[in-house]
Amino acid sequence: MTTTHNLRINGERLWGSLIEMARVGGTPRGGCNRQTLTPEDRQGRLLFKRWCEEAGMSVRVDRLGSMFARFEGRENLAPIVIGSHLDTQPTGGKFDGVLGVLAGLEAVRCLRESGYTPRRPIEIVNWTNEEGCRFTPVMMGSSVFAGVFPLELALTARDAQGAILADELAKMELTCDAPMGGREIAAYLELHIEQGPILEDGGYDIGFVSGGQGHKWYDVELSGYEQRAGTTPMPVRRDALVGAAYLISEIRRIGLDFAPLGVATVGFIQARPNSRNVIPGEVLMSVDLRHPDGDCLAAMHEAFVAALEATRDRFQLDGKQNCVSEHAPVSFDARLLDVVRRISGDLGLRGRDIISGAGHDAFHLARISPTAMIFTPCRGGVSHNESEDITREWATNGATVLLRTALELAETL
Amino acid sequence: MTTTHNLRINGERLWGSLIEMARVGGTPRGGCNRQTLTPEDRQGRLLFKRWCEEAGMSVRVDRLGSMFARFEGRENLAPIVIGSHLDTQPTGGKFDGVLGVLAGLEAVRCLRESGYTPRRPIEIVNWTNEEGCRFTPVMMGSSVFAGVFPLELALTARDAQGAILADELAKMELTCDAPMGGREIAAYLELHIEQGPILEDGGYDIGFVSGGQGHKWYDVELSGYEQRAGTTPMPVRRDALVGAAYLISEIRRIGLDFAPLGVATVGFIQARPNSRNVIPGEVLMSVDLRHPDGDCLAAMHEAFVAALEATRDRFQLDGKQNCVSEHAPVSFDARLLDVVRRISGDLGLRGRDIISGAGHDAFHLARISPTAMIFTPCRGGVSHNESEDITREWATNGATVLLRTALELAETL
Repeated sequence: MTTTHNLRINGERLWGSLIEMARVGGTPRGGCNRQTLTPEDRQGRLLFKRWCEEAGMSVRVDRLGSMFARFEGRENLAPIVIGSHLDTQPTGGKFDGVLGVLAGLEAVRCLRESGYTPRRPIEIVNWTNEEGCRFTPVMMGSSVFAGVFPLELALTARDAQGAILADELAKMELTCDAPMGGREIAAYLELHIEQGPILEDGGYDIGFVSGGQGHKWYDVELSGYEQRAGTTPMPVRRDALVGAAYLISEIRRIGLDFAPLGVATVGFIQARPNSRNVIPGEVLMSVDLRHPDGDCLAAMHEAFVAALEATRDRFQLDGKQNCVSEHAPVSFDARLLDVVRRISGDLGLRGRDIISGAGHDAFHLARISPTAMIFTPCRGGVSHNESEDITREWATNGATVLLRTALELAETL
Repeated sequence: MTTTHNLRINGERLWGSLIEMARVGGTPRGGCNRQTLTPEDRQGRLLFKRWCEEAGMSVRVDRLGSMFARFEGRENLAPIVIGSHLDTQPTGGKFDGVLGVLAGLEAVRCLRESGYTPRRPIEIVNWTNEEGCRFTPVMMGSSVFAGVFPLELALTARDAQGAILADELAKMELTCDAPMGGREIAAYLELHIEQGPILEDGGYDIGFVSGGQGHKWYDVELSGYEQRAGTTPMPVRRDALVGAAYLISEIRRIGLDFAPLGVATVGFIQARPNSRNVIPGEVLMSVDLRHPDGDCLAAMHEAFVAALEATRDRFQLDGKQNCVSEHAPVSFDARLLDVVRRISGDLGLRGRDIISGAGHDAFHLARISPTAMIFTPCRGGVSHNESEDITREWATNGATVLLRTALELAETL
């Protein structure tokens, strides 16, 4: 007999919705191009709205276009909010973000079918512009909602073609009258694909996200002296690329010093003039430091600053760094995490605690509400890629844990 | 009294010719854009031809467009040939190549004014396409003349727009009937700016070029595995840029091991996908090794191959190298060098032996004829640059040494 304690979501229906949504902005290689506030995004929003209304929810939209579909509870209390995002990268996959939104929808569909009304309302949110590929910054809807970033700055953001966000939002033809944050949320839950290989490699069904890495992103500029390669003796050179090579090795050493939780990466490099027979006079490069512990991240920063100083001294270069993005580590709510762990165990799922390497809307919600995240495995750790893939079973398991967690919290919080 | 032994060139006239030629293809920043076989090159060729004819020379052109202006001698012997090139880089300077051609012209003007007829004929050559920026390979005219490279391959070369060299040569409207090499040359002399800082920094007036570096140029490709920077632990990474950084440091070490005569440079690097938060899966880079001694250059090659092997092993990368250009070291003629040293000393000039780091037409002529090069200092070692600069005094000194050397060789060889 199905009770509110052993509800399972309908895996076939969830999978069907995922595939139907993936056709909106679908790419020839099986991915999605549904960038925020484009005609494809509008089409995806309309489909989501219809589904929500068919599931007995009412949909409101805040001033930045984030959509809240509400399933009323027995009491008019602060809601349990479940969410993620429907926007994608230009060559994104079918599941990043979408799984979290549609699993929430599927949870409500099941609840409604069961005839049960939870004590607290449940809201499913589709955050505007999580990806940040068209308008920066990323995770825009959730960050403005949580008061991290002013609404006005978001509305005046421009894309690469100069289009203004407010104008593009107007084209969505939404009634943007829901409150922009400032209201109580009993708990926020987000289901997401891992976007890394840890769960799949270890044969796990599910991940209990204990927190998110903090990160510091830097632009680094090294300047030496551009000279002909054939005629400039080694000892008098001021080769910016030689300095960059030393610094890249040092960044790796810093990552290893703080492994396994810390990571340090140089992903971008540009030498100038970048010509075979000219000593590089200038190098631009990125540095990406991450750690789930704030003190460790601060120590990595100090080690990086010292390495840059050593690079300058050792190779007679000018060098400077500029922190272009940073986020403190996030710890999710221990009580919510316990609920997720127990419910997964009841379902016979093999799970493990995991740290999120990527950023998510939940990071911002954690500032204003008890928050938890649940990860499903993802094939080969591949994401932000048209070949992003998960199994139906992973999706079904994740959505069922989400449903039962939301329901328990709606009753007990 | 001016005799054939104390002739001096007319520095004002030489400088005037340099400046007049620089107007052909002159750039707003004071440089020249007179790339080979362009309308600007044609204009420069016509000006040079007129000057040569005014100086009593007859001009013939070989099948690749290299121009030979001949001042007849008392006897019909193999000539003393003086030359360099009038073509420039797209943002080239006023003196690279041009000085060598116009100093030869000025030498003949002075000889003619003195009324003296040397024993051997003297020819001034303007080699086609020394720069190699429009059509490859570089030093094309001299290499085909010396039998290093087949004429047919040169004539069928294409520029970046697909234009064929033979068609572009036809637009010069030259009568290309002079023999393409295969004739005896008594001696070849080339005056050139140093394109490096050694003479100016040491306060020298002139450089006696004892030889040219050999070089080996490689393309290197390193392949690892592209993964997300946030979620991939340090120990399991296969980061191609970390491998490249190690290899760049090793290339520098090899250069230092063979310093001061050896140099080793990585001038070009390209990481893929070159994105801040992605571990680079692939790096392309150049390696440039140079040494004036063939055995040392071979040893540098071996050290590089070993370093690449170590890079592969150490960072679990695939890696390969491809030698895309090489040139054996060149030693110029010791007897000619002695003449240049002595004549410079007679003029009270402070000179030193020097190795040419850049390639010159003289490198090819050294295969078929006794050859010597003379360097003038150049401001800051700057060349292939619109701000390339020399003093009138340096030009006058260099051209006077060239004149007296040519005259002595024309009498005594």
